[in-house]
Amino acid sequence: MAGSTFGTDFKITTWGESHGKALGVVIDGCPAGLNLCESDIQIFLDRRKPGQSLYTTARAEGDKAEILSGVFNGKTTGTPISVIVYNKDQHSSDYSEIASYFRPGHADYTFDEKYGFRDYRGGGRSSGRETIGRVAAGAIAVKLLNELNMDILSYTRSIGHVNIDPDNFNKEEIYNNPLYMPDERAAKEACDYLDKLRATGDSSGGTVECIVRGLPTGLGEPVFDKLDAELAKALMSIGAVKAVEVGNGIEAAISTGSANNDPFRMDKDRVIKASNNSGGTLGGISDGSDLILRAHFKPTPSISKAQDTVNKSNEEIRVNIKGRHDPVIVPRAVVVVESMAAITLVDLLIRNTSSRMDNLKKIYI
Amino acid sequence: MAGSTFGTDFKITTWGESHGKALGVVIDGCPAGLNLCESDIQIFLDRRKPGQSLYTTARAEGDKAEILSGVFNGKTTGTPISVIVYNKDQHSSDYSEIASYFRPGHADYTFDEKYGFRDYRGGGRSSGRETIGRVAAGAIAVKLLNELNMDILSYTRSIGHVNIDPDNFNKEEIYNNPLYMPDERAAKEACDYLDKLRATGDSSGGTVECIVRGLPTGLGEPVFDKLDAELAKALMSIGAVKAVEVGNGIEAAISTGSANNDPFRMDKDRVIKASNNSGGTLGGISDGSDLILRAHFKPTPSISKAQDTVNKSNEEIRVNIKGRHDPVIVPRAVVVVESMAAITLVDLLIRNTSSRMDNLKKIYI
Amino acid sequence: MAGSTFGTDFKITTWGESHGKALGVVIDGCPAGLNLCESDIQIFLDRRKPGQSLYTTARAEGDKAEILSGVFNGKTTGTPISVIVYNKDQHSSDYSEIASYFRPGHADYTFDEKYGFRDYRGGGRSSGRETIGRVAAGAIAVKLLNELNMDILSYTRSIGHVNIDPDNFNKEEIYNNPLYMPDERAAKEACDYLDKLRATGDSSGGTVECIVRGLPTGLGEPVFDKLDAELAKALMSIGAVKAVEVGNGIEAAISTGSANNDPFRMDKDRVIKASNNSGGTLGGISDGSDLILRAHFKPTPSISKAQDTVNKSNEEIRVNIKGRHDPVIVPRAVVVVESMAAITLVDLLIRNTSSRMDNLKKIYI
Amino acid sequence: MAGSTFGTDFKITTWGESHGKALGVVIDGCPAGLNLCESDIQIFLDRRKPGQSLYTTARAEGDKAEILSGVFNGKTTGTPISVIVYNKDQHSSDYSEIASYFRPGHADYTFDEKYGFRDYRGGGRSSGRETIGRVAAGAIAVKLLNELNMDILSYTRSIGHVNIDPDNFNKEEIYNNPLYMPDERAAKEACDYLDKLRATGDSSGGTVECIVRGLPTGLGEPVFDKLDAELAKALMSIGAVKAVEVGNGIEAAISTGSANNDPFRMDKDRVIKASNNSGGTLGGISDGSDLILRAHFKPTPSISKAQDTVNKSNEEIRVNIKGRHDPVIVPRAVVVVESMAAITLVDLLIRNTSSRMDNLKKIYI
Repeated sequence: MAGSTFGTDFKITTWGESHGKALGVVIDGCPAGLNLCESDIQIFLDRRKPGQSLYTTARAEGDKAEILSGVFNGKTTGTPISVIVYNKDQHSSDYSEIASYFRPGHADYTFDEKYGFRDYRGGGRSSGRETIGRVAAGAIAVKLLNELNMDILSYTRSIGHVNIDPDNFNKEEIYNNPLYMPDERAAKEACDYLDKLRATGDSSGGTVECIVRGLPTGLGEPVFDKLDAELAKALMSIGAVKAVEVGNGIEAAISTGSANNDPFRMDKDRVIKASNNSGGTLGGISDGSDLILRAHFKPTPSISKAQDTVNKSNEEIRVNIKGRHDPVIVPRAVVVVESMAAITLVDLLIRNTSSRMDNLKKIYI
Repeated sequence: MAGSTFGTDFKITTWGESHGKALGVVIDGCPAGLNLCESDIQIFLDRRKPGQSLYTTARAEGDKAEILSGVFNGKTTGTPISVIVYNKDQHSSDYSEIASYFRPGHADYTFDEKYGFRDYRGGGRSSGRETIGRVAAGAIAVKLLNELNMDILSYTRSIGHVNIDPDNFNKEEIYNNPLYMPDERAAKEACDYLDKLRATGDSSGGTVECIVRGLPTGLGEPVFDKLDAELAKALMSIGAVKAVEVGNGIEAAISTGSANNDPFRMDKDRVIKASNNSGGTLGGISDGSDLILRAHFKPTPSISKAQDTVNKSNEEIRVNIKGRHDPVIVPRAVVVVESMAAITLVDLLIRNTSSRMDNLKKIYI
Repeated sequence: MAGSTFGTDFKITTWGESHGKALGVVIDGCPAGLNLCESDIQIFLDRRKPGQSLYTTARAEGDKAEILSGVFNGKTTGTPISVIVYNKDQHSSDYSEIASYFRPGHADYTFDEKYGFRDYRGGGRSSGRETIGRVAAGAIAVKLLNELNMDILSYTRSIGHVNIDPDNFNKEEIYNNPLYMPDERAAKEACDYLDKLRATGDSSGGTVECIVRGLPTGLGEPVFDKLDAELAKALMSIGAVKAVEVGNGIEAAISTGSANNDPFRMDKDRVIKASNNSGGTLGGISDGSDLILRAHFKPTPSISKAQDTVNKSNEEIRVNIKGRHDPVIVPRAVVVVESMAAITLVDLLIRNTSSRMDNLKKIYI
Repeated sequence: MAGSTFGTDFKITTWGESHGKALGVVIDGCPAGLNLCESDIQIFLDRRKPGQSLYTTARAEGDKAEILSGVFNGKTTGTPISVIVYNKDQHSSDYSEIASYFRPGHADYTFDEKYGFRDYRGGGRSSGRETIGRVAAGAIAVKLLNELNMDILSYTRSIGHVNIDPDNFNKEEIYNNPLYMPDERAAKEACDYLDKLRATGDSSGGTVECIVRGLPTGLGEPVFDKLDAELAKALMSIGAVKAVEVGNGIEAAISTGSANNDPFRMDKDRVIKASNNSGGTLGGISDGSDLILRAHFKPTPSISKAQDTVNKSNEEIRVNIKGRHDPVIVPRAVVVVESMAAITLVDLLIRNTSSRMDNLKKIYI
């Protein structure tokens, strides 16, 4: 139980159901003196809602973030920051049918088994709307990273079989297309693919990539709370993620030591790596090069195609799930991946402050 | 800091360096009344040491587990179980050269950056010997799972490009070959591949797969402490793991909803899934089908081939790292993956006991 | 940092400032299936507000609890329960003067020192209003304890030098007087004492006692998370508490072993203790007899008498703090002590479910 | 379960039973670069063993500390420090009788109830020998505090009704008498009292006081992890402690606001308090004045006087517990109180490093 809190020193606790009164997050452990206002958070929430797109739910959510505590005169005070987003359209009546059976690929069955019953309205706690709290906290974490001269870039790397082409990589393109892909051509191809899926009531999986620049060396705690281990948990905790990679990830398993090891060399008086297969981490500690992460998402389980399943009377049935469905969740998930990565990094930044006696002396003597 | 403890209710804390006096683990939160003796743990430690093999370090480690507390008259008492393994051959003198530079692919550089200096003897805390504590704890966790009618099967799934063939899958074969592969033919092919690498002083990556049968529904805590999230952290915390998958994992990202969703159906009076793409988890909670995990390992960074690096005086140098090197770490890691999976599952089994008021009533009324 | 979360398996996180928009709490880890509605919580919040009394702040707070998540169809769902209380009258303008200096006995100085500045409106996070979140969570914890046949009784034991007389103890009297004392005569005497203090602009300390009946044996985790240790933290975390006792507490230090040891004897087929000096705990584990706790509160630091202090320009000044002040905080704190005790007990009840393999077998086999 | 770990960022895990093979502690989160050797720890262990005294157990324990990990070339490395103390004389045979009944005032009954059985040899995990791990960790914590210019003084304040006289307070006297009292006259009086008790096979309680000087402002995390709350847990977790006080503690409850508030004033350019009733904490945060703590111990439950109890066959019996018994535990507990206080302070020192953005900038920019 009690799995809604993430982090050790920078600690977030999310709450709320898809069709309850509201959703929110409490961020505890944010240092005092960070400039913060509601629009910082709103910008992130809006990235969850690529409204201009045919490929993601058209429901005009208009999620509006409100800060209820922890900020005074435009600055964080060091006390818990509570952010709330009220749910606007709660069509509980739409969900009466869904209450009666288990949607394939959803958490209906497992919530019933674990808790004895479930809040079936819109998926309850297992809805994608649960990520609102993560993203609100992520906005704060990214702000803090920026203040320490780090930045984080996230985008859709693939949708189905359509991958971005590294030669076409264009950072500016990310916000130009509804799929948040940094490659115009790939974005068009993916749109065509999604159009076809949508026509047949089907959906697609995809991959989000996240790159952090400016990370200091030393983040990550041997042995269990390695940088990559904490990030793996952070990303795998996002609904629909089925695989997580750091650096060259799965490719490392088919590589050889001589090809995979990143040689060290000097860049003026600074030690750097000549390549970055490791993706910015060695021995679970940041090595000063770019951190590279990938999260692989399964296709949206909500499809309108007919499916076989079982109802609560243990009868085998065939269902057509109604409602508008995203043919892909990945573009909306880009900001969620970024948020979880940033939250994890802030936590590890704080945890690392005590790695050396010298740091304590800097602060206390 | 303080990253050497894993788990919430079943909590393990490991300690020890490769060439220190000893390594060990404290297991806190193990229920009272589990039969346990030192040979239960020794069996697991011995699986770390496939001594009969050419492909893993020949150093006769002879690690011997000793239980120092928490067991009385052959049963766990509910108090912390301390297990110690003394280091036998500590050739500190062998490591004087390594102290002077940063081995590519190793944690030498990042430990120095984080802590200001490092215990350079055999990699110190970042050595593979650190897993001794994990495996000792894993032996206890597996014993507990077995007592609750679950079992766990782990093996090498691939080495370099050599994959096991599902059609040749033979559980009995796992302990017949030095690579712990459940496919005789693949094992031979992989041995040939490793022979070639060894001849050139190179090494290979590979993949470990782990399957858990008999898992009850309901394990895993929404939203951050999902079953898959906790497992991802557990596996990614193992040195050299660069990617983690659950179920069809990375394949899910190129699939469609209609192909990827597992339909529910009835098996007599029991709800089951007609397929298992999800790998035993839905919404981060176990769904009653087999749990399927994969951990991808990078090639052993210790190779005898010449490599470019930097020394502690910031000079670019070319090094040949001496000593016997494993051309592959994967077979030795099989039991480590199994241990981390088992530890995670026991923790989540315990955490799930309070999911319903009914369970509390069963115990307290 | 991050000190606003309490509990391991039953985990509460409070947030909010005295004069911010709202205050609240997130309860994570509450088992599914507990009947719960807003009025359950409102009853507890109302106990914080003995409005009929001259001895506690007259401000008509009218705190109204709203449940935002975690409850569906009148039952807890197992997901986080978010409770919010909006602040109604926020007279920020009243606090401009207080912002300029450090009130003696308050946290003004230490918040400034820790965070660099503070939300000075009404004490911000260090206000007594912070306990709203504790009490809302306490209402849920007490409900859960009741469902498992335990009950908890709390009252004012002393105000200043006025103690209740054990011979006059009358449980029914507690809610008959504004001081929540179970002794009519003592209550009257204490009222007289408070009248005198109020006339001179002064205040009084006092003691709250809490008794839990029906507690099963076995709660509390050796060695650091002993029942009494967790309760000591819970109670000492309440603002203004300066001492905590279990059982005969401070008296034990002047006693002898032969007088202090509680002999065991049989009550039919049940082991009981012939006395209860230990206050219901032996070796940090509940022993089946009544749990007895006492929290000692310092006098309300807000007094209208003139006081010496220092302002933010480091000048020594003499101040008269304006506003209505409680001459005593203790009666309002009774429900806070009860809440913290109940929250701690629920957490330990849940943690204890895995003390024996047999319990796991009851649930999983 | 899992109650053997203490601390958030500076985390200690103890293990071991009175008559098992060994006892020990793992300290995780100690910053790298602290000078440390085994004799630092041995000095603290020796303070547990006032062997020269008639008033504490004569068993020549000769506990010898060995550091097994986490220290290299005389400095902590940042990795877990494992300290072990082997048990020398294990007279298991002496305890066969005790296994058959429940000693009054001991944890025999509650351990049996919680776990189903117990390691009855010398009290197992509930023995006073469990504090060895705390004291070994405490030695490291005190060393770290000293390096940051703080110091900690602990002594026996009272034994039975015999209190030290503030006018006779003499710091040098503490180690001159076997009771660790800073008042020669009181020490003599207490010795006489203990002689009488010993003659009748009885025992006494007492009080330990601990004062920390040089503590910076800002330690302690609102609201649950207040400085005083964490210390209360730390001290109450020591076996036999029944009450904990901070500052004027229990006296505060009978005081008035005007008498109890500590006025602020200037000492040159530094804000100080004119008195220290608060004992060094305001709002749960250190206020820069001396931290003052008191722990009240019940009398040693092991007495040789005849006592009534119950055996494991549920028969009422009268027992005379054999063996040498301490007529008082308090002198041996002085170093335990000091250790737990120091461990708590180091943890809060580390947690406080991130209270302000400025501190993060000091370290990372």
